[in-house]
Amino acid sequence: MTVERITAAQNPLIRHIRKLQSSRSYRRECGQFVCDGWKLLEEACKWYPHLLTVVYTEGLSCPPLPKTVRVVQVPESLMQSLSSMKSPQGVVFTCALPTAESVLPVPGSLLLDGIQDPGNLGTILRTADAFGIPVYLTNGCADPYSEKTIRASMGAVFRSDPKFISMEDCLSLCKEGGIPIAATALTPTAVDLRTLDLRQYMTVIGSEGQGICRELLERSQQQVIIPMEPRCESLNAAIAAAIVMWQMK
Amino acid sequence: MTVERITAAQNPLIRHIRKLQSSRSYRRECGQFVCDGWKLLEEACKWYPHLLTVVYTEGLSCPPLPKTVRVVQVPESLMQSLSSMKSPQGVVFTCALPTAESVLPVPGSLLLDGIQDPGNLGTILRTADAFGIPVYLTNGCADPYSEKTIRASMGAVFRSDPKFISMEDCLSLCKEGGIPIAATALTPTAVDLRTLDLRQYMTVIGSEGQGICRELLERSQQQVIIPMEPRCESLNAAIAAAIVMWQMK
Repeated sequence: MTVERITAAQNPLIRHIRKLQSSRSYRRECGQFVCDGWKLLEEACKWYPHLLTVVYTEGLSCPPLPKTVRVVQVPESLMQSLSSMKSPQGVVFTCALPTAESVLPVPGSLLLDGIQDPGNLGTILRTADAFGIPVYLTNGCADPYSEKTIRASMGAVFRSDPKFISMEDCLSLCKEGGIPIAATALTPTAVDLRTLDLRQYMTVIGSEGQGICRELLERSQQQVIIPMEPRCESLNAAIAAAIVMWQMK
Repeated sequence: MTVERITAAQNPLIRHIRKLQSSRSYRRECGQFVCDGWKLLEEACKWYPHLLTVVYTEGLSCPPLPKTVRVVQVPESLMQSLSSMKSPQGVVFTCALPTAESVLPVPGSLLLDGIQDPGNLGTILRTADAFGIPVYLTNGCADPYSEKTIRASMGAVFRSDPKFISMEDCLSLCKEGGIPIAATALTPTAVDLRTLDLRQYMTVIGSEGQGICRELLERSQQQVIIPMEPRCESLNAAIAAAIVMWQMK
C-alpha cells in the first residue's frame, strides 16, 4: 500500500475535502462525499464499492484497503483542523456517490417528504436498512450524503442507496404501477395504521414542522395515523417512520 | 403581572440559571431545572404545576402566567448570552423538579439502562408519553431534566414524570411483585419480541455503546430481540424503545 504524505492545509486534496464537508452542491458537482471515523471506514470497506481516498493521522494504524484507494497520512494538527468532529478519530475518507439510476416505486416502501433534520434522516435510513425497507426521498429532504446524516445512519447508506424522486414522478409512477399512497397525517379521514396492510402501500412520512405537503396529502389514497394519547401532538419523525416500517414487516 | 427588569449579567438570578444549565448536581441540589423556548413554556403552563421563574427579552410579548410565577425582562444582549440555543427564542424559564416519590415498578413499562445521549433519552420520553408507557431510569442514564433532553422530549417531562430507580431496587421490587423482566439483547436465548405479551413485562433498553449491564441481563427472565436484516448490528436506542412500546400497546 503506497502512502502519500500531506502536511499543507492548502493542499488541493485537503481543500477538496473541506468543500465536500460543507457544500451539498459541490458534492453533487463532483459526485463525491466525505465521511469521518474508523467505524464508518470499516463499514465502507465491507459494503461500499466506491471508496476513493483515505486520509489518516500519522502514527495510527490503518486497516488494509483496496489497491485502487489513494491513501494519505497527515500530521495530527492537520487532522484536528480537517475533521468536523469535536473529537477527531484520526481518519477522514471520500467515496464516489452511487450513480443515479432510474427509480421505480415499489409497494412496501417509505417516501420521505421534506425530512430536514440530518439526525432524523440518518436514523430513518439506519432503521430502513435494518428492516429491509426501500426508502425514497423527495427534493425537500436533507442530503443523505452529508457527514451528519451518514454518522446518524451508522453507515446504512453504504448498504442501501436511498433513492431520489420528485413528487410529481412519484405520484405518476405510483398511479401507473397501481401502488396506493398512504400518508401519515392527522386528518379527519385518517385510519389507524394497523387496519391497513402497509406492504401494499407506499407510505409517506412528512417533516416534523410542516407535515406532508398538501399536494401529496390530497393525492394520497389513504391517510393513516399512529394512535397515541390525545394530549400528545406528534411523534418524532424518525420514530413515526420506525413504527410504519415495523408494521410493514 | 408584575415584571422585574434585570440588566446585569452578574445578577444572582442570571448566575443561578447559568448553573442550572450546566450542572446536574446543582439542579439536584436546589431542586430546579431550566428550559428554553416559547413552545416549551406553553407546554409547561398547560401541564406542569411547578413553574417558578420566566425570563424573557424586553419588547417580546409573554403569554399570561400564573400569579405565583416570578417574571423578569432582560435586554436582548443579555438573553443572547444567557440562552444556550444557537438562535435564542427570547425566553428561558425555571421549574421545580417533581418531588421524588417512592417508586413501584409496574408491568408494561420500560426500564432504561444507561441511556447517555440526551437526544435519545428525550425522544424515548416523548414516545413513552405519546403511548402512555411508564418509564423508569437507572442511575446510569443522562439527566431527563437537562435542557437538551427536555428539548428532545418536546416537553414530555411536563406531562409524565420519568421515575428513578436503582437497578438493585428494581430487581428486588420486580421479584416481589411478580413482574418478569425482558431484556432486549442479542443473546443466543433471545426470542422474537412479537412472541411475548410485553404488557406483562418490564422491558429493558440498554445503551447504544454498552447494551444492557451484565447483572440485569443475567437476572432477566427473558431476552428478546427485534428481528432485523442479518447484516445489521443494531438499531438506534430510541428506535428500539419505540418498537418495544408500540408492541406493548
